[in-house]
Amino acid sequence: MKKLLLIHGIFLSIFLLYLYDYHFRESSSSPLSQEEEGLRGEISEKYVMVTFQAGIDYWKMPLKGFEDAAHALNVSVEYRGAAQYDVHEQITVLEQVIAKKPAGIAISAINPDKLTPTINKAIDAGIPVILFDADAPSSRGDAFVGTNNYNAGLTAAHKMADLLGSKGKVAIVTLPNQLNHQERTKGFLETITKEYPEMEIVAIKDGKGDQLFSRQMVVDILREHPDLAGIFATESNGGVGIANAVQSVKTHKKIKIISFDTDKRTLDMVKEGTISATLAQGTWKMGYWSLQFLFHLNHKLNPSSEEGVSDATLLPPYMDTGITVVTKENVENYYAK
Amino acid sequence: MKKLLLIHGIFLSIFLLYLYDYHFRESSSSPLSQEEEGLRGEISEKYVMVTFQAGIDYWKMPLKGFEDAAHALNVSVEYRGAAQYDVHEQITVLEQVIAKKPAGIAISAINPDKLTPTINKAIDAGIPVILFDADAPSSRGDAFVGTNNYNAGLTAAHKMADLLGSKGKVAIVTLPNQLNHQERTKGFLETITKEYPEMEIVAIKDGKGDQLFSRQMVVDILREHPDLAGIFATESNGGVGIANAVQSVKTHKKIKIISFDTDKRTLDMVKEGTISATLAQGTWKMGYWSLQFLFHLNHKLNPSSEEGVSDATLLPPYMDTGITVVTKENVENYYAK
Repeated sequence: MKKLLLIHGIFLSIFLLYLYDYHFRESSSSPLSQEEEGLRGEISEKYVMVTFQAGIDYWKMPLKGFEDAAHALNVSVEYRGAAQYDVHEQITVLEQVIAKKPAGIAISAINPDKLTPTINKAIDAGIPVILFDADAPSSRGDAFVGTNNYNAGLTAAHKMADLLGSKGKVAIVTLPNQLNHQERTKGFLETITKEYPEMEIVAIKDGKGDQLFSRQMVVDILREHPDLAGIFATESNGGVGIANAVQSVKTHKKIKIISFDTDKRTLDMVKEGTISATLAQGTWKMGYWSLQFLFHLNHKLNPSSEEGVSDATLLPPYMDTGITVVTKENVENYYAK
Repeated sequence: MKKLLLIHGIFLSIFLLYLYDYHFRESSSSPLSQEEEGLRGEISEKYVMVTFQAGIDYWKMPLKGFEDAAHALNVSVEYRGAAQYDVHEQITVLEQVIAKKPAGIAISAINPDKLTPTINKAIDAGIPVILFDADAPSSRGDAFVGTNNYNAGLTAAHKMADLLGSKGKVAIVTLPNQLNHQERTKGFLETITKEYPEMEIVAIKDGKGDQLFSRQMVVDILREHPDLAGIFATESNGGVGIANAVQSVKTHKKIKIISFDTDKRTLDMVKEGTISATLAQGTWKMGYWSLQFLFHLNHKLNPSSEEGVSDATLLPPYMDTGITVVTKENVENYYAK
């Protein structure tokens, strides 16, 4: 009987301990209200990245950044894109994405004007849209996260002048319909024209983002300008095609090539010296901060107007993700590990 | 005895319930590892904002943004600053802040060169530093969050041309030692010079950020240039002083003034028409995103290098927080509510 009472007493103690513990846990967890939980979403919240030429290596880093931010914020991502370099295909993909009402869309616009109506349609449907990599400035997208492309062209111009001793004929192979490439071209052209009087831009050509087409394009330019000293490619397929063209003719092997981005083929050519330099963009950052911005918009983390914040908006209109020059000296740092 | 056994049984059940509950809580809380908790810090993590002329209204919005981000991320903030417009005082304050080893520092640099050694000292001590509002570009600070000041000057120049019918003499009253003011001046000067041949900048003067000093400065300018048509003030104390000077002389009341920022005195003068326009900066955003960036640096939320992210950095070198033109038409939106 005494023993039973003892056990009884022990269980009573445990029960009281349980009540105490329960109460303690409640009081410690109750201040964990919405406000103090940190920035955290739901796995059911889906953010979609939309690109074009969706299979190319270039998008791996933005997508990695997008996924890293999603992981940090406990939300989901989906990757969609036009398979080809085709504006109509990208519009169709974007329409399909909008129909599913995702939590937010990050899109790189293949063509700023032609994508604008569909981007605005997403905004009208209440879906936050961040432009990354290639902007559509006349759309009502919420912000642009990407390279200052004019500045990238300017950087390439100074590097080209450096390689050529500030003199000689130079050509540009670009994508004339895409705003980011237009700005790279403009930054390069204006810098050479203003600051290097002994340099001359003799050709600006459409390489169609295609290796073989760009290669043939350069063969044509070289026929017209056999004394060409340098070529700036505003995208990497063009860069590789140009390097192949230049390598195929003995007398042209000294032509200096500056390319763009850091896919493996380009890095290999920088390493072996057939491409003198390439420009690395902050591609991981594009994806990471696009998702952060979309999360902020979706969760309406706006400044509270009651407390004296008047007409303040949440997002910066533009985030410059920076540029670095890659040469033989630092190329090893840019290979995917 | 039977009753006792029943009670005994009840306590036993409660005990088992407790064990089950304990186990359940453990297993449900264990997947809530670091990775899925979202972005959330500790209240003991203290981030410090450092300014100069610390008592002026201007800092209220950046501090509000800083506090809002801290609230969202569950961390603490502290506000420090030089009481005066005094570079040595700001250096002293920054030294004191560094000595306390905070989780991060957001600083607006009164002088880019003189602050640089102390900013680098913080970096060497392992403290993340974000420059906001006024950059120190040669320092090793982690990023700059603020207005594109050249662009703000350019915007002011176009507005001034608009107000004056693209002709007439214009003066600038500025702070020649502060980088943000140098760039506003440069953007204004270059735009007027390049794009408006019938306009002329006749004076660029140091207003010392002081209302009375700027007032006297303008009286002197008007003595030399009685036909002055417009004045651009790159900061608001100057703007108010200039407006007072212009109002005090009947014949000069038509001089158009463009000022900077949205403190109450400036907005009142825009409302009554003595200041024609003022430029509003994204000040809340400066504070909000500075704290976000510092949090990311302090928590080392870098891209993971194992998974193919090579040489990728976490932060953009620069975030443009934007500018808007405030006139009589939209001034009501800018009053603190």
